[in-house]
Amino acid sequence: MSKNLTKRSEDYSKWYNELVVKADLAENSGVRGCMVIKPYGYAIWEKMQAELDRMFKETGHQNAYFPLFIPKSYFSKEASHVDGFAKECAVVTHYRLRTAEDGKTIEVDPDAKLEEELIVRPTSETIIWDTYRGWVQSYRDLPLLINQWANVVRWEMRTRLFLRTAEFLWQEGHTAHATEKEAVAEAEQMLDVYADFAENFMAIPVIKGVKTANERFAGAIETYCIEALMQDGKALQAGTSHFLGQNFAKAFDVKFANKEGKQEYVWATSWGVSTRLMGALIMTHSDDNGLVLPPNLAPIQVVIVPIYKTDEQFDAVSETAKELMAKLRKLNISVKYDNRDTHKPGFKFNEYELKGVPVRIGLGPKDLENGTFEVARRDTLSKEVVASEDVVAHIQNLLEEIQTNLYAKAQTYRDANITEVNNFDEFKDVLENKGGFIAAHWDGTPETEDKIKNLTKATIRCIALNRKEEPGSCVLTGNPSAGRVLFAKAY
Amino acid sequence: MSKNLTKRSEDYSKWYNELVVKADLAENSGVRGCMVIKPYGYAIWEKMQAELDRMFKETGHQNAYFPLFIPKSYFSKEASHVDGFAKECAVVTHYRLRTAEDGKTIEVDPDAKLEEELIVRPTSETIIWDTYRGWVQSYRDLPLLINQWANVVRWEMRTRLFLRTAEFLWQEGHTAHATEKEAVAEAEQMLDVYADFAENFMAIPVIKGVKTANERFAGAIETYCIEALMQDGKALQAGTSHFLGQNFAKAFDVKFANKEGKQEYVWATSWGVSTRLMGALIMTHSDDNGLVLPPNLAPIQVVIVPIYKTDEQFDAVSETAKELMAKLRKLNISVKYDNRDTHKPGFKFNEYELKGVPVRIGLGPKDLENGTFEVARRDTLSKEVVASEDVVAHIQNLLEEIQTNLYAKAQTYRDANITEVNNFDEFKDVLENKGGFIAAHWDGTPETEDKIKNLTKATIRCIALNRKEEPGSCVLTGNPSAGRVLFAKAY
Repeated sequence: MSKNLTKRSEDYSKWYNELVVKADLAENSGVRGCMVIKPYGYAIWEKMQAELDRMFKETGHQNAYFPLFIPKSYFSKEASHVDGFAKECAVVTHYRLRTAEDGKTIEVDPDAKLEEELIVRPTSETIIWDTYRGWVQSYRDLPLLINQWANVVRWEMRTRLFLRTAEFLWQEGHTAHATEKEAVAEAEQMLDVYADFAENFMAIPVIKGVKTANERFAGAIETYCIEALMQDGKALQAGTSHFLGQNFAKAFDVKFANKEGKQEYVWATSWGVSTRLMGALIMTHSDDNGLVLPPNLAPIQVVIVPIYKTDEQFDAVSETAKELMAKLRKLNISVKYDNRDTHKPGFKFNEYELKGVPVRIGLGPKDLENGTFEVARRDTLSKEVVASEDVVAHIQNLLEEIQTNLYAKAQTYRDANITEVNNFDEFKDVLENKGGFIAAHWDGTPETEDKIKNLTKATIRCIALNRKEEPGSCVLTGNPSAGRVLFAKAY
Repeated sequence: MSKNLTKRSEDYSKWYNELVVKADLAENSGVRGCMVIKPYGYAIWEKMQAELDRMFKETGHQNAYFPLFIPKSYFSKEASHVDGFAKECAVVTHYRLRTAEDGKTIEVDPDAKLEEELIVRPTSETIIWDTYRGWVQSYRDLPLLINQWANVVRWEMRTRLFLRTAEFLWQEGHTAHATEKEAVAEAEQMLDVYADFAENFMAIPVIKGVKTANERFAGAIETYCIEALMQDGKALQAGTSHFLGQNFAKAFDVKFANKEGKQEYVWATSWGVSTRLMGALIMTHSDDNGLVLPPNLAPIQVVIVPIYKTDEQFDAVSETAKELMAKLRKLNISVKYDNRDTHKPGFKFNEYELKGVPVRIGLGPKDLENGTFEVARRDTLSKEVVASEDVVAHIQNLLEEIQTNLYAKAQTYRDANITEVNNFDEFKDVLENKGGFIAAHWDGTPETEDKIKNLTKATIRCIALNRKEEPGSCVLTGNPSAGRVLFAKAY
């Protein structure tokens, strides 16, 4: 298998697009802006889902399912929400096709127009809060802790596989609480869950912060986020958790009787991560040879490739390979034995490198003779010869080491690419020549934020939760600032 | 909790609708024909998904994801397919909203009309086979064994929760093969998987068969099905598996080079089950007291309800309850301890009866004194007092016994409701006064099938795979028949 992958240094964006397709993760479909997630890519997404779902359930959430369609009128009920989403909605207007005049093709039946148009959900706050009205009467019904795994549609003009697609897969949590304090705590808890998942499963270091008013979710009082840094110096928002106040409760009239019997509006949160995480995963770890997967999310953690010339050699190698597989599987390590006789070992080596399999074992007659295995790791592209009796423990340790190493490497890169600047020339210089996060003072106004965006394309990614309080002057206006915020160009 | 459930004998349909809502399984939404699947209902669906997904993977299938939208023109490519689905399609025509003249509400932006309308998938053969064209070149790429978990939309005028909804959740397998024989074997294998799942997990006996031409999937050469019998004597199609021949390969030009290098069209299957299975589950086992769940699909298999007057009693009961819980959880039995102090034991007993929890344990000071547990089973509504030292083994056995008992009960009912008839008067009599499956001779023509349907509303549910070859005369026309087929009124 020849990889023919564009080098990252030549054209990062081209490298990304090629890698997604060549590593069998996803491809564009015949439908504008909609992708096909291929089995190998979907297997990674399934591992993400399983882990996140476990974390949601451990924090007391239950899954449910709400309609794909939202009546148009629901959208008008929360004013800032409709402003945020109206321009990118797919709209269902009819419900029937009929045979066209040529008798062969079909067309939309004009007589089957819907009384009220339906929006294909871009997010589900409106339909869910319309439902919650019936579910919440008393404080005893709260908190309501619900998650949904679903597809959503946002009509984007410029799309890229996983990063920005018209349809994408995600989970959206929607919770209802009796008090403001509880709702804020929930939003913060889910941010921690996302950060934990990103760091310990995806091996992606993230900065936890809050968005500025400009970048907030349409309808939120506060948007919490985790921000990651990609290899090309651009930031990527990897997950958001919103404190929605009583905005949706008021829009959809969701009240409860408190312990004193008084009617109050419910407090809300929502939070989500999507198949966009696949893009973050790829752009954090992969290299010019292809995908690099952290073992915790790799569908195949170990692959064994037999090297042989005769049938006898193949049989002997296969026997040893199968013994090893059985031992690894007992430890819940997912292992594949690639015994295809249609491809040569070199082709297979290339293929698994491209697909980011963390550990590859080449096994031939010489290894059998010596009682050894040749163990190659994908992250460093290095090989070791390991004695038979040590190989299982070696692989087990190696998988942990790769997971740790990928995180450490990403963290070193990320930390080296947070640059403090103190004036606007520095700001522009760092942005153009280095990239990464720029820690700069900002005067706190949306106007200044907009100006900087227009001048540089950089936006405020977040106000880090752990930022130092440090008086300073805004990098653009010189007006007073209470601390630095993080700017970057972003996906 | 007062159940106030309509009796099945009074109004079966009303009983069903009430039960679905009162047992917290699902409810109607503000969107015409679309349901909300509530957490308890969704938890049952998740258990179904997990088990089916495991079975699909064990038979070599991988999951993938294809677009929600299908360009209208794709639909015209397979003629019988479009005929089958055109009348129930939701059509996306626009992609943007704009503020209306009143400045408050929103309307569809007429300038943002799509060049080609998009159909919300009612099933995915067309978009998937358009994709497979790029995935299949050589016999080495076959078989292609793919499954998708997704939502689909069929615009139905009369809907019922789970049984017939405009949007529903399902899985759809789509496979591609080098030979007709392999594709037929795949379709038959997946029918066996469905039957295995229905019988061993849902405790629903099913009849495996093939559909007549009239009832075949639009675009199929052969439709295999499993048919179940509900308590009211109506049949329910619980799953279908289609041998599609080369119809979709020809429509979408999917060819492969065989071992001799010759180009051939690929052979196809598709197969699916949906949230309709929830309806089958409910209508097979439940009773006038509420839901009855087979232990293999129950989100809560055992519930412990404390009975106490004083705080001291509560503490003592809780300690014993928690010990039992720990032991049961070690055996992977899902158990809930309902220690809410806002509701009385009687309310809780009613609630878990309504929700079909297989085993309920009432635990009070007297039980502690005697060293016993009161164990109630939902299926027979009977109770037993069990000694502490036996209780874990007792519960483990009881869960298996309930699973077996539910199946046996359903099978006895089903078998007692397959009636052989030999003339049309008998046919009408049985249909009206007894219901169930009617095993009757049929002359094999679609015309006769249509006539019987128009006269009686009964359709041919299937030609059972294991039917006896037995010459006879058609129950309507008297023309020769090679064996009996199964008629019924159906959901």
